[in-house]
Amino acid sequence: MTTETAQVSALSAEDVLKHWQGHRGLTRRTIEAFPEDKLFSFSVGGMRPFSELVWEFIGMAIPIVDGVATGNWVKYNGSKPGTKAELLALWDAQTSELTAKFRTIPPRRFAEIDTAFGQWKMSGVGTIQYAVDNEIHHRGQGYVYLRALGIEPPQFWDR
Amino acid sequence: MTTETAQVSALSAEDVLKHWQGHRGLTRRTIEAFPEDKLFSFSVGGMRPFSELVWEFIGMAIPIVDGVATGNWVKYNGSKPGTKAELLALWDAQTSELTAKFRTIPPRRFAEIDTAFGQWKMSGVGTIQYAVDNEIHHRGQGYVYLRALGIEPPQFWDR
Repeated sequence: MTTETAQVSALSAEDVLKHWQGHRGLTRRTIEAFPEDKLFSFSVGGMRPFSELVWEFIGMAIPIVDGVATGNWVKYNGSKPGTKAELLALWDAQTSELTAKFRTIPPRRFAEIDTAFGQWKMSGVGTIQYAVDNEIHHRGQGYVYLRALGIEPPQFWDR
Repeated sequence: MTTETAQVSALSAEDVLKHWQGHRGLTRRTIEAFPEDKLFSFSVGGMRPFSELVWEFIGMAIPIVDGVATGNWVKYNGSKPGTKAELLALWDAQTSELTAKFRTIPPRRFAEIDTAFGQWKMSGVGTIQYAVDNEIHHRGQGYVYLRALGIEPPQFWDR
């Protein structure tokens, strides 16, 4: 059987949102698994501590959803949390904001090619996938930090 | 503007395939970046060497596409490569096979709930996403191994 795969819808916008939020839940549990001092200081191979990787996710999530929704690409300009509690509070605030804003994305914008932040030329959904993939990629690195600290990371399949 | 996000197609089957193959290309370059001995022996925090993580991807990719396409969930039973060249050759063979088989997936199977390998109850596309996410997650861990070895990993955005 041959399928015209380009014409078959595999994922709805809501599926993409749920997938992202599932990963965000896992990232939250990964943040929680770090002892406070290690979250802000520990790394392997000269890389950034996990708090800095999370700060990167925070800098991307809402600005990307805003950009896909509106065509306006505005860099995140919040101030960086200095404690685990502050980081988790900011994470939770963005989680709610992300769902609300995601659902305002006009349908045509998922496929529409745009230049995110004046630099990354991709479809709207491609830019969203990039943010999710980047979160999975760097969270996987956080798992190595946890293992190197002798801490069991959360189960990857638990979303 | 409010969108019925559950009704909006965000990704076609072909988009999902291209996204996966883009990641497979990056994983291939990550395998290549490892010195042969380190590929099979080096790790951080008591984790598996990168060759074992790649072996996990190989064990999932084609069996999952077969399972989604046909409803038959059969575990991979190939034999484990012992050299980098063998691992890359197997990777390349699967890359072609994956594209061909993916395009035979009947459209209804993406949304249909099935129990992958008698264990994981998900939609077809959910199972495919799990394989891709797992590859991104563990490849990110390979990046830490490379950094710990003083080797620059491939650019994450280059697919």
